[in-house]
Amino acid sequence: MSTFLFDCDGVLWSGDTPLEGAPEALDMLRKKGKQIVFVTNNSTKSRVDCKKKFDTIGIAASVDEIFGSAYSTAIYISRILRLPRDEKVFVLGESGIEAELHSEGVSFIGGTDPDLRRDMQPSDYAGLASGAALDPAVTVVLVGLDFHTSYIKLATAFYYLRRPGVRFLATNVDATFPHSHGLFPGAGSISAPLITMIRSVNLELEPLPLGKPSQAMMDAIEGKFKLDRSRTCMVGDRLDTDIKFGIEGGLGGTLGVLTGVMREDDLLQAGKEGREKGPSAYLEKLGDLIAGA
Amino acid sequence: MSTFLFDCDGVLWSGDTPLEGAPEALDMLRKKGKQIVFVTNNSTKSRVDCKKKFDTIGIAASVDEIFGSAYSTAIYISRILRLPRDEKVFVLGESGIEAELHSEGVSFIGGTDPDLRRDMQPSDYAGLASGAALDPAVTVVLVGLDFHTSYIKLATAFYYLRRPGVRFLATNVDATFPHSHGLFPGAGSISAPLITMIRSVNLELEPLPLGKPSQAMMDAIEGKFKLDRSRTCMVGDRLDTDIKFGIEGGLGGTLGVLTGVMREDDLLQAGKEGREKGPSAYLEKLGDLIAGA
Repeated sequence: MSTFLFDCDGVLWSGDTPLEGAPEALDMLRKKGKQIVFVTNNSTKSRVDCKKKFDTIGIAASVDEIFGSAYSTAIYISRILRLPRDEKVFVLGESGIEAELHSEGVSFIGGTDPDLRRDMQPSDYAGLASGAALDPAVTVVLVGLDFHTSYIKLATAFYYLRRPGVRFLATNVDATFPHSHGLFPGAGSISAPLITMIRSVNLELEPLPLGKPSQAMMDAIEGKFKLDRSRTCMVGDRLDTDIKFGIEGGLGGTLGVLTGVMREDDLLQAGKEGREKGPSAYLEKLGDLIAGA
Repeated sequence: MSTFLFDCDGVLWSGDTPLEGAPEALDMLRKKGKQIVFVTNNSTKSRVDCKKKFDTIGIAASVDEIFGSAYSTAIYISRILRLPRDEKVFVLGESGIEAELHSEGVSFIGGTDPDLRRDMQPSDYAGLASGAALDPAVTVVLVGLDFHTSYIKLATAFYYLRRPGVRFLATNVDATFPHSHGLFPGAGSISAPLITMIRSVNLELEPLPLGKPSQAMMDAIEGKFKLDRSRTCMVGDRLDTDIKFGIEGGLGGTLGVLTGVMREDDLLQAGKEGREKGPSAYLEKLGDLIAGA
């Protein structure tokens, strides 16, 4: 293998704590001349924010090695959709998404706007129902992990989604995200109310996820890092995102670790369901790479 | 028919506006000596709150005629589950639920507690993941319509739900609720993130809904009002709650109105799918009862 793609949460750290041996394992790979790319679905952070997190945790990384779902989504909107300059994205998410959209020159509203962190007022109901409170330039609704999800945001996004032709994108659809050795609501839980509402009005609309396991993200990574897929290994803690991402991307290998979401039982179950579900190999923790080096 | 069960939102009013002719239609039924019960899935209001809403709108009603999903749920917890006094309910919802739980002597936490309307702090992640922030007395998670849904509430509810034996109840699971002639997130959209998270950890747990169309609510109404089901008619604007509630309850009739969620197309579709899906009759609006009287 010449390149290693690393998931971060649950592989390198949990919350604000580095996982045992993870920094040393990365150092070892670097010393062996391996290319390293950090591929994270955490959409709350821009690449620059993510670099700060690496610094805090004490893991060496450069901004150019970081590839997050917010960045992947911004690239998709600007370069694949080629969203016209006079159209806008309505964002449910944090500043990381805003920073990446901004870096790609994409116009947006919502996001961290404090006006969407307040209580609904009677005039809000009327404004949304009549459309007067909606921006006619919005043609995309983008949902990522939002620590400030609110009733008014969900109601507003629902009204945008019901307009003909509006696209529904998601940085990712992970139901949970790992923190402090536990699981917390992920981007897929932020979009869940919208999916419930949309189905109830018989609209056929599902969010298009642009983080792992979406191959749009793999294509973007391949384009940027010129990697040889057959000599690339994806390392992660989730079968349904990381491992699936590597397998569907035709990578040379996938490596599972048990320090995040995936448990040994899940691997056994995946093994029963066939080769195409489970990782090529797994370790209790990334630090064990050193023992096996 | 001797008794009429009325849904409120979308039948009598939309938001804060009475629907044309609805007050007059009710007056006419009262003059004819019909018993009237208002059966609402809006769990944000207690019966007393609901009476105030009737007063504001200008429709005559007494507290005893009102039967809401918050009340229905409180009765279920106190009289059917017989929750021990030292156990507690964790509430996602508004003051209406709290008032009805209080009236039935049920202990609870959460709800309108301002401490759950703030941002997550690093210590919250650790406290939830370790269990230190959880109240060991909580044995029920109850979700209703919550205009103040938040990340910390969803995360907390998720941790309670993962504890063995904890029950998952919902005042109702309507995806949307009508307001200002539009649709807004309903109780079913508030519980959607929890269902998404629970499924992702392979737990078999679905919320038990205690509002329409749950027959637990019909049984409670029958017990309180001593009604003759064969001479009772349910009037509503939703096929999947109101009309289903009446049909499955074996009522003498069901009457649909088109001033809320249901459209004429939905009725045609229900007609195709068989007698057991659609109402026995329908009107453009409740006010049309007068023309046909």
